[in-house]
Amino acid sequence: MHNIEKNRLNDEKKYALIVDRLQKRGVTQKDIADITFHLQTKYLPQLTMEVCLDHVKRVLMKREVQNAILTGLELDILTEQGKVSEPLSTIIKSDYGLYGLDEILALSIVNVYGSIGSTNFGFVDKTKPGIIGELDKKYEGKDTVNTFLDDIVGAIAAAAASSIAHKYADADSKPENFQ
Amino acid sequence: MHNIEKNRLNDEKKYALIVDRLQKRGVTQKDIADITFHLQTKYLPQLTMEVCLDHVKRVLMKREVQNAILTGLELDILTEQGKVSEPLSTIIKSDYGLYGLDEILALSIVNVYGSIGSTNFGFVDKTKPGIIGELDKKYEGKDTVNTFLDDIVGAIAAAAASSIAHKYADADSKPENFQ
Amino acid sequence: MHNIEKNRLNDEKKYALIVDRLQKRGVTQKDIADITFHLQTKYLPQLTMEVCLDHVKRVLMKREVQNAILTGLELDILTEQGKVSEPLSTIIKSDYGLYGLDEILALSIVNVYGSIGSTNFGFVDKTKPGIIGELDKKYEGKDTVNTFLDDIVGAIAAAAASSIAHKYADADSKPENFQ
Amino acid sequence: MHNIEKNRLNDEKKYALIVDRLQKRGVTQKDIADITFHLQTKYLPQLTMEVCLDHVKRVLMKREVQNAILTGLELDILTEQGKVSEPLSTIIKSDYGLYGLDEILALSIVNVYGSIGSTNFGFVDKTKPGIIGELDKKYEGKDTVNTFLDDIVGAIAAAAASSIAHKYADADSKPENFQ
Repeated sequence: MHNIEKNRLNDEKKYALIVDRLQKRGVTQKDIADITFHLQTKYLPQLTMEVCLDHVKRVLMKREVQNAILTGLELDILTEQGKVSEPLSTIIKSDYGLYGLDEILALSIVNVYGSIGSTNFGFVDKTKPGIIGELDKKYEGKDTVNTFLDDIVGAIAAAAASSIAHKYADADSKPENFQ
Repeated sequence: MHNIEKNRLNDEKKYALIVDRLQKRGVTQKDIADITFHLQTKYLPQLTMEVCLDHVKRVLMKREVQNAILTGLELDILTEQGKVSEPLSTIIKSDYGLYGLDEILALSIVNVYGSIGSTNFGFVDKTKPGIIGELDKKYEGKDTVNTFLDDIVGAIAAAAASSIAHKYADADSKPENFQ
Repeated sequence: MHNIEKNRLNDEKKYALIVDRLQKRGVTQKDIADITFHLQTKYLPQLTMEVCLDHVKRVLMKREVQNAILTGLELDILTEQGKVSEPLSTIIKSDYGLYGLDEILALSIVNVYGSIGSTNFGFVDKTKPGIIGELDKKYEGKDTVNTFLDDIVGAIAAAAASSIAHKYADADSKPENFQ
Repeated sequence: MHNIEKNRLNDEKKYALIVDRLQKRGVTQKDIADITFHLQTKYLPQLTMEVCLDHVKRVLMKREVQNAILTGLELDILTEQGKVSEPLSTIIKSDYGLYGLDEILALSIVNVYGSIGSTNFGFVDKTKPGIIGELDKKYEGKDTVNTFLDDIVGAIAAAAASSIAHKYADADSKPENFQ
């Protein structure tokens, strides 16, 4: 019992740590929830930002998601710091379209939410709404590496949208159904 | 709110229907829980059949899992009834190793539990423990088609084992930690 | 050796059969190549329809792809013919957004082309270009079921686009590099 | 045309580099081909080590595979060198069963070979044949980190086995069919 408590605590601690690291890389939970809202509002007109933020938090509490985020951010940062060897360093720095590992980490985040997660991510990955499109410009000319970060942000947003879709699947769209 | 209740009810009804259909094809929840126990007891010596049965039920309550089971069983039954056209009918009847769609449906069940689900399923798929190995022999010489069923059963068992692994991740293996 | 020849022949025969079945459901290889062109021309301005058609054919020659197409079309047709039992029949007929198996079959087609295949498919699945958007309207009011077909068409187009991306990865965009 | 040559050359160069890096981590192509042989000989009694080695090489020539290997080995080495931050460093060092990213990289290697690749990998991951089982012991007590390496080796072996299965699918098992 107390172990299970301990586990949950660990997930809570890891959650706080991840929110903090994303913020240091320029991404808040609200930035992510904005993309979730953009993705899902056409299907659920009564959707609110509170519901989006709640589901972004739920996604960030999942162990597989936390591990994917920690690993992707680490690869961005180590590349930035010149600690990654060649040819991988150049591949990651140039955000080479056929590298693929950034999308693979992202897909491991959305897969937990079934096939709808994958298609939501694919759309976000191509259209680059909100903070995702800004990440590149924000750091242009600087030595920041966000190769994994933009896919991770897209995957969290897509996963939260899928989580909302699953929860309100048959809801009859009345505002009181949204807490 | 009441809609969310309605959803849960739907899942409950679908759960009862699926348990019934699996039973008609010769598979009980206990058969599946036996494989889960076999898979996970080496990592959690205090594991009980009650815990395994509980997690098999949890897996069977998931919407994606229910849809994969309904679709796979339907393809087995329609092939049995001669309603599937050629060359697909012959491919499914012969349980042709490179058909692949049976494993794809199975992987859609285990993917919900992260990468550990996939590796558990791969092991079950090769070693065919318990009811999985029996399914073939049981119906040998008869016109029963179980091409999807054996992979589905393996996937449910593997998913339940993964669900247990996630829940008791850091538990210190004391019996009182298992309810 | 001759067996390997025999295999290739089988794939050729299955290819002809699949082209024929897609046509009977209202989809030509050109319809699919149009979507591929639409997806990839922004990255490769010198891309031609010939190259797109060639890669659509390559995708349709793959055994996993052929099996996924045969299975998906069969489920559409059997549902149309009233041979699928409830509740699956209603789920497939209504193209219910959380059914998921149509996307899972589609993802099994694109996965063969790496993670780029998945994101291409996700985009197509949301934006429904060309024949994909038409399929619904074309058959509106009729009893045609295209629940699997539209995802299959999107997946073949996305897979062909990914195949082109892999082949011309570092090509310096001169027309003579395209045969 | 010449660009396509250039691409192939790049893949050849990357192939040589990867063979060299695997060797520095204690793994030869023969070690991997041994596992492939072990996996596939029961289905193809006339299988030779030459065929296994040839298919291991084919797998190592694929771009997605090369990128996954480069990334996984880098994470092992950077962790060994103390360059990875906490808590990720401890998670990777302890080869924590629910970390999952090592299996996700491995699955991205086998997915290219369809669903048969996944089940082959799952089996290898659980049974740890040949060099995979040895890797842990070999470096016990030393500060070597092989968290990604053992899964990568298993995935290459499983992918090569799947590649062989696809090629000799319907071969009638005569030795002259194997070149």
